[in-house]
Amino acid sequence: MKRLEDLGERVAIQRIVTILTKGKNTLGNGDDCAAIEMGNKYLLVTTDMMSQRTHIPKQMTPYQMGWFLVAINLSDIAAKGGTPLGLVCSFGLPKKTSETFLKELTEGTNACAVRFGTTIVGGDTKETTQITLCGTAFGTIKKDEFMSRIGAHPGDVVAVTGTLGKAGVGYYALKRNKKEKKLSKALLEPQPRLKEGRLLAQFHSVTSSMDLSDGLSASLYQLQEINAVGFEIDKDALPLASGLNQQFHAEHDVDPYSLALHFGGDYELLVTIPPRKFEKTKRTLQEHGVTFTPIGTVTQKRKIILLENGTKKLLPNKGYEHFKKHDF
Amino acid sequence: MKRLEDLGERVAIQRIVTILTKGKNTLGNGDDCAAIEMGNKYLLVTTDMMSQRTHIPKQMTPYQMGWFLVAINLSDIAAKGGTPLGLVCSFGLPKKTSETFLKELTEGTNACAVRFGTTIVGGDTKETTQITLCGTAFGTIKKDEFMSRIGAHPGDVVAVTGTLGKAGVGYYALKRNKKEKKLSKALLEPQPRLKEGRLLAQFHSVTSSMDLSDGLSASLYQLQEINAVGFEIDKDALPLASGLNQQFHAEHDVDPYSLALHFGGDYELLVTIPPRKFEKTKRTLQEHGVTFTPIGTVTQKRKIILLENGTKKLLPNKGYEHFKKHDF
Repeated sequence: MKRLEDLGERVAIQRIVTILTKGKNTLGNGDDCAAIEMGNKYLLVTTDMMSQRTHIPKQMTPYQMGWFLVAINLSDIAAKGGTPLGLVCSFGLPKKTSETFLKELTEGTNACAVRFGTTIVGGDTKETTQITLCGTAFGTIKKDEFMSRIGAHPGDVVAVTGTLGKAGVGYYALKRNKKEKKLSKALLEPQPRLKEGRLLAQFHSVTSSMDLSDGLSASLYQLQEINAVGFEIDKDALPLASGLNQQFHAEHDVDPYSLALHFGGDYELLVTIPPRKFEKTKRTLQEHGVTFTPIGTVTQKRKIILLENGTKKLLPNKGYEHFKKHDF
Repeated sequence: MKRLEDLGERVAIQRIVTILTKGKNTLGNGDDCAAIEMGNKYLLVTTDMMSQRTHIPKQMTPYQMGWFLVAINLSDIAAKGGTPLGLVCSFGLPKKTSETFLKELTEGTNACAVRFGTTIVGGDTKETTQITLCGTAFGTIKKDEFMSRIGAHPGDVVAVTGTLGKAGVGYYALKRNKKEKKLSKALLEPQPRLKEGRLLAQFHSVTSSMDLSDGLSASLYQLQEINAVGFEIDKDALPLASGLNQQFHAEHDVDPYSLALHFGGDYELLVTIPPRKFEKTKRTLQEHGVTFTPIGTVTQKRKIILLENGTKKLLPNKGYEHFKKHDF
């Protein structure tokens, strides 16, 4: 008898999906959001659960837990190019939880929602033994603007918004018990890329899109599987987070590129774009203050290759997956 | 410092609501669902969490957990008169959970969704120490058909769909370890009243509506507060569930009327209707096979009175509330 720890989260989700009866007017299996037809739009719906066991470092404040819950859900709306309509948040909390904790947790959810132009419209509270939080975000997008995970084509440019590895830098700062709030903020208060997602969707230039919640390598492996393509990623092109330098390497004995490639939690967008559309898209994003970096190309051969000093290596799949143990 | 066990679930939710920034185009604070403007319709959204600690009797099968999760969310859509568009379900599960458990849990969610004409469109799985399940249902309703909790008017008839106390009968059957699946089914596999809600909404006759998840007395106290009215309930008029008879009384030493008044989990609809509209509404519901019973009237005086053998008593508020201890 297999248990969830043997299956891992992704196989568990595959098992679930095979059982479910599919709706006539929905798409989005394996995508960041479900997309349900409503006239000329899709209603986007996504849900994420956080538990004390897997997601909540002991240094995370109740405010940050609330922020995080809302941010990771909005990130899925962002990855499809959508505009959020609202969220519902459910709090499973031990009965000894203080009123102050509840207040700060709620303030965190509200602050993140308001920061990104939306609101918390409902929720639930229940008694649990450990903190378990569940958020659901919903939004809309015009059908012809929806950015699916499916559509990457050989020859497309692979690009990411922002920088990579900043959540990893925050993780190591926390691990060393450093009181560097700015560093840990990238890990504990991620910024969903809603503006970036909307801009990309309006250009109609993206052939596939997902968020980097699980880290670059894990995300590339998911895109590879769903698109039946491969990738060549140029290690030197990766936009490293500002703290990922030689000093970081020496101090923590961790390769900065390993964090940029494998550590999750950056919540940037990973997209593929036909080469003829890339430069204009990049320029327009830059005019809106968004860093947008080409990091490789989509290939016909179904392998994920890392180009490093002129040599090609197979990129290992090391992303974070729940239920299973992992390297970090 | 107050803790959640001192506050109780309802006060905790009030605390949350005061912190949240309200959306411009939403209504539904204190209602079963949030309602968000989308043209001439509302998008209805509701979320409910179940935890091993409070909601999952040890006799409940994984299939029933899944069914229950979907049913209680659809019940909130039903209470507003809505048509479901879909659900997302998140499973917080211990890592030792078997693949079979996951399969049956998923089958239960799917069976309930399909039985009521909708589908599960997405979800999440996370590792937790105890089973914690979170569902979110969404649906639509024409604006002029939306059945709010607010609107009860003195003189209105108070009515309920179906029968009362059947979940209570199921609870006592389980407590005695009876293998009477039919009895416990009412408790463990509730039926959301979507058909009933749609019919009532189409008549435009209802002045206020909510589901009976928390039991009749608790629900009346919630309606009383939000509407600034009172109620006179006729004890003899209560439509008792079929198992709630003298034999049940003798066997369990529990007053059948106490179960009908205070035990939650029936998931029937509680509505108020102007007297001139009542008979026609009742007749049409009966033509659709729905039992619809007047149980009292809305009063100006802000008290909830139980009429019993010609005498009037104050009805105590004994509904189930999480975090706080209760009588059952």
